[in-house]
Amino acid sequence: MSRRFEVWAPDGLGEVRPGDDLAVVVGDLLDGDMSCGDLNDGDLHDGDVLAEGDVVVVTSKIVSKAEGRVLAAADREQAITDETVRVVATRERPDGPPLRIVENRLGLVMAAAGVDASNTPDGTVLLLPVDPDASAARLRDALRARFGIDRLGVVVTDTAGRAWRDALVDIAIGAAGVAVVDDLRGGVDAHGRPLHVTVTAVVDEIAAASELVRGKAAGRPVAVVRGLGEHVPSGWTPDGGGARTLVRASESDLFREGTTEAYTRGYADAAGGRPPAP
Amino acid sequence: MSRRFEVWAPDGLGEVRPGDDLAVVVGDLLDGDMSCGDLNDGDLHDGDVLAEGDVVVVTSKIVSKAEGRVLAAADREQAITDETVRVVATRERPDGPPLRIVENRLGLVMAAAGVDASNTPDGTVLLLPVDPDASAARLRDALRARFGIDRLGVVVTDTAGRAWRDALVDIAIGAAGVAVVDDLRGGVDAHGRPLHVTVTAVVDEIAAASELVRGKAAGRPVAVVRGLGEHVPSGWTPDGGGARTLVRASESDLFREGTTEAYTRGYADAAGGRPPAP
Repeated sequence: MSRRFEVWAPDGLGEVRPGDDLAVVVGDLLDGDMSCGDLNDGDLHDGDVLAEGDVVVVTSKIVSKAEGRVLAAADREQAITDETVRVVATRERPDGPPLRIVENRLGLVMAAAGVDASNTPDGTVLLLPVDPDASAARLRDALRARFGIDRLGVVVTDTAGRAWRDALVDIAIGAAGVAVVDDLRGGVDAHGRPLHVTVTAVVDEIAAASELVRGKAAGRPVAVVRGLGEHVPSGWTPDGGGARTLVRASESDLFREGTTEAYTRGYADAAGGRPPAP
Repeated sequence: MSRRFEVWAPDGLGEVRPGDDLAVVVGDLLDGDMSCGDLNDGDLHDGDVLAEGDVVVVTSKIVSKAEGRVLAAADREQAITDETVRVVATRERPDGPPLRIVENRLGLVMAAAGVDASNTPDGTVLLLPVDPDASAARLRDALRARFGIDRLGVVVTDTAGRAWRDALVDIAIGAAGVAVVDDLRGGVDAHGRPLHVTVTAVVDEIAAASELVRGKAAGRPVAVVRGLGEHVPSGWTPDGGGARTLVRASESDLFREGTTEAYTRGYADAAGGRPPAP
């Protein structure tokens, strides 16, 4: 026996525009994904467009586009400032304005506050959804109704940098209908000893997995994950258990401020406000 | 059309012991995974134990066990100290020794330096492999020979915490035969504009995906990923392109030191060595 899941991302989604009904756009895409019907392995991918326990993953980009979170590109630096709750770290760049890593309205620590200027119409930038967990819940409601599914999860992704590691991975910034974490605390290992590694960020791992078939340049902003139904409970309600719960409170974050920023603040506190020599 | 991949993790691996030949253990597990032969969807999961373009994912835990990286548990704090190249941040804990987030020999920033005390025989702890990229390359060589595969990837995973986000995800600490990143720099989006989000950490996303079927307590430390063959090149050689390349150099890391540690250092530098008041 083996545990198994699969992920697919249909081609063919056109441009999403402000005011589009995202549930209709995504539902039509999934309905029209003929490769589903071609397959019959008697196991996971059984020809249903959506099945009980599936998770639909969408990029925050198409959520933002449908929700009209578009600004004129001339305002990009101002948009970053407006989205910023707290500056975490900055770095000068020779070829443009400084890189700003900030905590944004959603509590997410991200470069440029998550303000996006790729894959958007010329002359515009895109802000993150106002409330990605609520966006996920709305999309879930509509897809459940359309496809007659009880247990359905929705994850909204974005792409993020990391401390200590180069390159980017997708994370979940919104989630509905799916357990955000797998909490193994209180469990034991194969030797009967308490498990130390205990809380897994399931929706972040789903986001990362889906990125592998969605791609950045490929026009596949929607994916379906089948086979992880144990994380998709019946009777889910939006009780505050969305992706927002994965945001670590900055006051308990050992990395709430960049190294140089914290050093400079410490120096100035001891030196009557005088900063360290450059 | 859609892009698609699948991941499966066979049950039934017994305890891995020091001196075991990991390639034999993993190869026997995959050969004996009867669920493979039962499936025939004419597409991805075609009944082959391994196919061209597959990626085999193994936890660092079984690599370390096979390589004999076991120490007496009485030495856990000393083992962490010995694995530490640089202390990044610490936090006091009421129920034990302080949490130490450190940079270890491999350049990885991890709690407890990656020293592991779960799923190990009683009275022991496990160190990370000496060179996980080399471990991945050896396993790849042996599996390619056994199964007659040219294009085969191997990823060695570990579980890691993150700045700014709660809960844990799996990352790649070793890789062979698979492109570590998908570098889209120079590419353009659907509007012909340069892609800003440009380098994706493919092997970290593969590690995260595989964790979803491996699980922590389940005794499934091996997974196979099928359908991502575009990241598994022919003619791969171990030219330094392993998972080690994802480690950000600490001197260019804006979060190379914890906030409190950096603040305290700045304060002391300005105050002639005197630390800030607690």
